[in-house]
Amino acid sequence: MAELRKRHETEDKRIESAESDHIDSEDDKHLDPKISTNLSDTIPSGTNKAPLILELLMKGLPDRWKNWFVRGIFTILMIFFFGIVIYGGPLALMITTLIVQVKCFAEIINIGHAVYRIHGLPWFRSLSWYFLVTSNYFFYGESLMDYFALAINRTDFLRFLTTYHRFISFSLYCGGFVWFVLSLVKKYYIKQFSLFAWTHVALLIVVLQSYLIIKNIFEGLIWFIVPVSMIICNDIMAYVFGFFFGKTPLIKLSPKKTWEGFIGGGVSTVVFGFLISHILCKYPYFVCPIQWSDNEGRMTMECTPGPLFTLTEYEVPTFLSGVLKLFGFSNSIYLYPFVLHSLPLSIFSSVIGPFGGFFASGFKRAFKIKDFGDVIPGHGGIMDRFDCQFLMATFVNVYFTSFIQHDSPHKLMHQILYLKPEQQLLLYQMLKETLQDRNVLQPIEDIVV
Amino acid sequence: MAELRKRHETEDKRIESAESDHIDSEDDKHLDPKISTNLSDTIPSGTNKAPLILELLMKGLPDRWKNWFVRGIFTILMIFFFGIVIYGGPLALMITTLIVQVKCFAEIINIGHAVYRIHGLPWFRSLSWYFLVTSNYFFYGESLMDYFALAINRTDFLRFLTTYHRFISFSLYCGGFVWFVLSLVKKYYIKQFSLFAWTHVALLIVVLQSYLIIKNIFEGLIWFIVPVSMIICNDIMAYVFGFFFGKTPLIKLSPKKTWEGFIGGGVSTVVFGFLISHILCKYPYFVCPIQWSDNEGRMTMECTPGPLFTLTEYEVPTFLSGVLKLFGFSNSIYLYPFVLHSLPLSIFSSVIGPFGGFFASGFKRAFKIKDFGDVIPGHGGIMDRFDCQFLMATFVNVYFTSFIQHDSPHKLMHQILYLKPEQQLLLYQMLKETLQDRNVLQPIEDIVV
Repeated sequence: MAELRKRHETEDKRIESAESDHIDSEDDKHLDPKISTNLSDTIPSGTNKAPLILELLMKGLPDRWKNWFVRGIFTILMIFFFGIVIYGGPLALMITTLIVQVKCFAEIINIGHAVYRIHGLPWFRSLSWYFLVTSNYFFYGESLMDYFALAINRTDFLRFLTTYHRFISFSLYCGGFVWFVLSLVKKYYIKQFSLFAWTHVALLIVVLQSYLIIKNIFEGLIWFIVPVSMIICNDIMAYVFGFFFGKTPLIKLSPKKTWEGFIGGGVSTVVFGFLISHILCKYPYFVCPIQWSDNEGRMTMECTPGPLFTLTEYEVPTFLSGVLKLFGFSNSIYLYPFVLHSLPLSIFSSVIGPFGGFFASGFKRAFKIKDFGDVIPGHGGIMDRFDCQFLMATFVNVYFTSFIQHDSPHKLMHQILYLKPEQQLLLYQMLKETLQDRNVLQPIEDIVV
Repeated sequence: MAELRKRHETEDKRIESAESDHIDSEDDKHLDPKISTNLSDTIPSGTNKAPLILELLMKGLPDRWKNWFVRGIFTILMIFFFGIVIYGGPLALMITTLIVQVKCFAEIINIGHAVYRIHGLPWFRSLSWYFLVTSNYFFYGESLMDYFALAINRTDFLRFLTTYHRFISFSLYCGGFVWFVLSLVKKYYIKQFSLFAWTHVALLIVVLQSYLIIKNIFEGLIWFIVPVSMIICNDIMAYVFGFFFGKTPLIKLSPKKTWEGFIGGGVSTVVFGFLISHILCKYPYFVCPIQWSDNEGRMTMECTPGPLFTLTEYEVPTFLSGVLKLFGFSNSIYLYPFVLHSLPLSIFSSVIGPFGGFFASGFKRAFKIKDFGDVIPGHGGIMDRFDCQFLMATFVNVYFTSFIQHDSPHKLMHQILYLKPEQQLLLYQMLKETLQDRNVLQPIEDIVV
């Protein structure tokens, strides 16, 4: 969705300016009039920016084509970069996620600072960054602790950090809270409280959700690649369908979006989801969770793929099997069960996902800015590209924990090893009893006799 | 701290109005001028309100004494009510927490709606409430599931709700998110996004933290009563010390607070913490966690108190033991270990706790309102009374999980029972092996031979 929001830049701008004229003045009263006029100047917009070398190459082209050209090149570059990062493995992906997250946060906070213009309080910006560091410490710590538990417990210092992780994080947060209260200056009260809220909402959107992305990566690269590429596919296909067949407007907020694009994009995404899932399921590199291997002393991505990634025979529903028989096919098919799970993901990414884009789009209209930043020529800011990805990541995580993940004996064993020896023994006796009661385990006496 | 903020109402008001004159006009530009003037009229303030019957009783008193009288009576009434609720047990406490939470949320949201005046969008208020219900469903569900796991798993319908709890909650949230985006109306963009942020920050402050209060209650009433009464004690004693010895101003934000009150309140709270902890430790009713008893088919608060609540002999440090010997005491004392843990709690409640009050106080000054509401005559809104309690609840929870709680064999056993039988057997074998390897469990052969 985000993809098609940017095309036809020129028309878009015309619409924007026409709309601005109609905007009720009540909104403006809430903002310093100087701010609302200047905001688009203070926030760097990247949609029309192009590197010098490209500018020279496109000298003769009309403006509209220039933009398409720049945008196209940087789309390809980004997909290429995405491929390289995936090739680099989970650590590279984690670092990339962190960088993207920090950049998104910076863009959102930048807008907040421009809106509320707190030039008189330069260190207020540090406070926002302090909260970013604190919450990242908390969330990254939580996810790393889960996966590196065995490795971490070897080092006394790391063990201290993990045992008291929540306490340390909370103390850090309290430090920021006290700092905020002490920094309150009479004539800036409203601005400061607004920015405090702004920072916390940004943390919820960016840090919390990128923590979930990291968690998805650890469950296997497929839980990251499939949803991310679904959003990209939906963005592009919705644009293509809208371009060729678009007639019925979809939502007032984004006048260029059409029902035809929405439905066409959705159907394409479902088909694309089936295809990419089927392909990725074949490679252990994509389906194996990232785990710490105690024997090798490093992270591994090797495993015997679970039932989710094993070809399974499915009966075709009777009304279809008749048709299949006509063409000489058997009435059963072989599928990876994951391919079926890709259906809810693709439906979410094409039905609810776009609302992340609408939300960002409404936000930009509210503050009359064109883009979140100017990092990616032809596209705008990082946040312009990732607006739909965050909500999707949360959905994937919730879906995974609700329908896929179950406590594994190995994970529980880790927890048991944290108990005191006498507690472990107690647990052993309890487990033995319940297993014997249910005849899962034969009573020892039987074996001896 | 919140306590002393309200005394000397008359002086306070004079200070407030004097301050208002100095306020830089830049703040006002962000608010509709009509709003900032009228806000104190639209938000009901309760500090000067008294029930008719009391008004009649106090007819002859000067205004200042009237307020003290009303305030004192309602302080006693509240402490009395608090006692009754504790007597009513954990369920009564949970329901009271829920009511307090809803009321606090309503007060914060009310202010938001008054600030941004969205009379044109009446159903936007429903959206805030929808998010409140959704997040409560999520958080209350999470805590109830933990504690009622065994009971819940008996009923198929409840089992469905718990298994897919996160998924259901997230779907509900997404519904609200989509509703918000669809509700965006052009001339209200900024107001709507501001209220969206406002609602989410209110949820973070009120719902998240009251969820932690519930969790504390389940760990044993003592984890609720001690911190709550510490905050109350600190409020009152800081006022008393400030009143008699106060000279040195503490913080610009609240000109009536003094270092003498801050330190005196702190020392009193530490002493009070020791006393109340020592008393409560004697009763299983206060120290036992609330657990589902499978035998009795109901919640119980009976247990053999753990080591934390068992009198333990402590060696007195050598420099003190000399003094003790002089007076004929032995050089060891008997204490409940919990009494020692009360020290960090009382220090937090008297050093960081007040910042919750400063924060609320700054917030009220920002929007030029006197109180959050008018529910408690002489005190103002519920939020005016509970501003410091929320941060404290989070601290108690973090402290408990970091320093007190360890996975218990029984909790892990619950998790194990969720595994499939063959996984339980695998876990059993793994546990047996590791126990035998470390000679915690004697190999079976030895016993047989």
